Amino acid sequence: MREIGLKELKDLAIGATLLGTGGGGDPYIGRLMAEAAISRYGPIHLVDVDELPDEGLVVPAAMMGAPTVMVEKIPNGKEVETAVSQLERILGKQAVAIMTIEAGGINSMIPLAVAAQLHLPVIDGDSMGRAFPELQMTSFHVRGLKATPMVLVDEKGNNLVIDAIDNPWTERLARTATVAMGGASIIALYPMTGREAKDTMVRGTMSKAMDLGRLLGHSRLDRDEKLQRLKTQHQAIELFSGKVVDVERRSGDGFARGTLSCVGLDAFGESVLRIEFQNENLIAVRDGRVVATVPDLICVVDRETLLPITTEGLTYGQRVTVVGLPSDPVWFTEKGMQTVGPQYFGYQVEHVSLAEGPITTAETNGGWA
Amino acid sequence: MREIGLKELKDLAIGATLLGTGGGGDPYIGRLMAEAAISRYGPIHLVDVDELPDEGLVVPAAMMGAPTVMVEKIPNGKEVETAVSQLERILGKQAVAIMTIEAGGINSMIPLAVAAQLHLPVIDGDSMGRAFPELQMTSFHVRGLKATPMVLVDEKGNNLVIDAIDNPWTERLARTATVAMGGASIIALYPMTGREAKDTMVRGTMSKAMDLGRLLGHSRLDRDEKLQRLKTQHQAIELFSGKVVDVERRSGDGFARGTLSCVGLDAFGESVLRIEFQNENLIAVRDGRVVATVPDLICVVDRETLLPITTEGLTYGQRVTVVGLPSDPVWFTEKGMQTVGPQYFGYQVEHVSLAEGPITTAETNGGWA
Repeated sequence: MREIGLKELKDLAIGATLLGTGGGGDPYIGRLMAEAAISRYGPIHLVDVDELPDEGLVVPAAMMGAPTVMVEKIPNGKEVETAVSQLERILGKQAVAIMTIEAGGINSMIPLAVAAQLHLPVIDGDSMGRAFPELQMTSFHVRGLKATPMVLVDEKGNNLVIDAIDNPWTERLARTATVAMGGASIIALYPMTGREAKDTMVRGTMSKAMDLGRLLGHSRLDRDEKLQRLKTQHQAIELFSGKVVDVERRSGDGFARGTLSCVGLDAFGESVLRIEFQNENLIAVRDGRVVATVPDLICVVDRETLLPITTEGLTYGQRVTVVGLPSDPVWFTEKGMQTVGPQYFGYQVEHVSLAEGPITTAETNGGWA
Repeated sequence: MREIGLKELKDLAIGATLLGTGGGGDPYIGRLMAEAAISRYGPIHLVDVDELPDEGLVVPAAMMGAPTVMVEKIPNGKEVETAVSQLERILGKQAVAIMTIEAGGINSMIPLAVAAQLHLPVIDGDSMGRAFPELQMTSFHVRGLKATPMVLVDEKGNNLVIDAIDNPWTERLARTATVAMGGASIIALYPMTGREAKDTMVRGTMSKAMDLGRLLGHSRLDRDEKLQRLKTQHQAIELFSGKVVDVERRSGDGFARGTLSCVGLDAFGESVLRIEFQNENLIAVRDGRVVATVPDLICVVDRETLLPITTEGLTYGQRVTVVGLPSDPVWFTEKGMQTVGPQYFGYQVEHVSLAEGPITTAETNGGWA
């Protein structure tokens, strides 16, 4: 067991936002929430899933919706507690631990806030090792768990319990309800036993996020040193460095969708890069060639500080660096690729392995580049 | 207590469809459902609400969605039973009676089917004395009851429990879920005590529907005799007789919306009539003048048989008669008119009283006639 204090919270917020690959909400807001919870209820305990009893109830909690809306509808701890407590009531069992669904500025923090409030530990890990836009995009789903019963609440006091026939139906019903609730909701879902958590989760995501956050937030390291450590310690690849020349945004169906366009600087001076996002960055195309796709992580960071920039924070003129990080192996299984591969998102391209080093060719651009 | 057998079922189907004022679903389908339930589970008992214990749980059940979709997604008794049973489970109480929310070909019958299956009586009455398109449009709402907890189920097995802050929010959340479920769902809502039912319901709607059905289905009476009895026994007014020349339909938001246009025959030979509908007929405009509006009943019937025609049954060339019937007094209260008056539906016109006899002038056509 390990305590999360204010210092760790700061690192976690930065690192989780990087792993959020553009989605998962703003790190500043998430950190404020968790800080408030710690100062009110005391420190948060991070546990390894193996420390939990096999029969104990584990409840993941998160915020659902477009990050652009999430930053406008800050949840208070009360709503998250309502969601978790209602799930406990439905199942007739008290939770032994809280879990995060995904890494991200808000969604790594919400579980901390509710854990502090309920005096429960948070498990070191999540269900993605990053962030993804739909709720069936979890290692739980790939490994056969159901997302229901699922509870949704909003800041007004509306409350929904979903029990769907499968996880894509849960996603559909929860998404339309979230849109009706104003574009964002607080959710508790995938209730599971400690045993199921051990068998299905992506481990260590919180520790990894804190490591990444400590590195990127380091005041004594310059850009090149940080980038070098990202490469050697986290298998990062620099995909691009340049200037944002356009951000086209489309929201309305419960997601923040859009396209980022950049022109290159320095080594990338002759190049252009385009990134398509749906809450998270999905696919990166450099000079008409696919250089990275989901499930690998496409992270847009400030070119000087290497601090992560979420999709809602992208603006014209920013100097950015784009790094690729390899995804958790769960996504390279057959069901994993069906669930989050580029083709699921409508891109007729093959996944391009980051592990093969800097890319000079690509399979196809499917006519949409 | 009174038994509903096959003869009564036939009358009820016709009369309830008339009171459905175009909405509430097809009478033939509804009747088949109730017949099947009676033949499997035995006769249905119709009770007066005063026969129920004050403390007993009363559960209204219905189908929600566009009638055009409802006739394509026929529920089986199982789904309705699931909805009612889940509400019982949530409240920790067994129902003592089933209630209908609205009059209509399907929504008068669904409660009968589930009542037969659960061996419970059905109360003689509903919450509208007619049909309306939204779930807060009930005498329960006007008199202060909450629609939640509300259960929605679909034919696939998806299941939702809504607990909203007020009835308009319940409508919004249930409507979006219904659209996501394919446009129609089975619902159990407004759970209440026998005392609350006595204080808030519209009484006698089932008996009235059976009376109307017996009259309209009568084989020995001709058109003029039926019309005369509708006028003397039910305060009906003949608003129009003519031929359907256009039916413009717009669906997609969970409602069947549209406009019916007719040209006159006989005494109405020089006239044209337009009816706007949202599941139910909302407003009738003859020669540019408003001649009837919600909450009064605007019923389109076959010109010869006077049998009711639902909005989804309207087609070019039909010879129709349009009759107006006065609504239950609950709708003429201030909250009643706010809830279902023409202005709620977006028409900038005043309600025109049917009781004043054949209309020769109208307040205004609000620029939309």
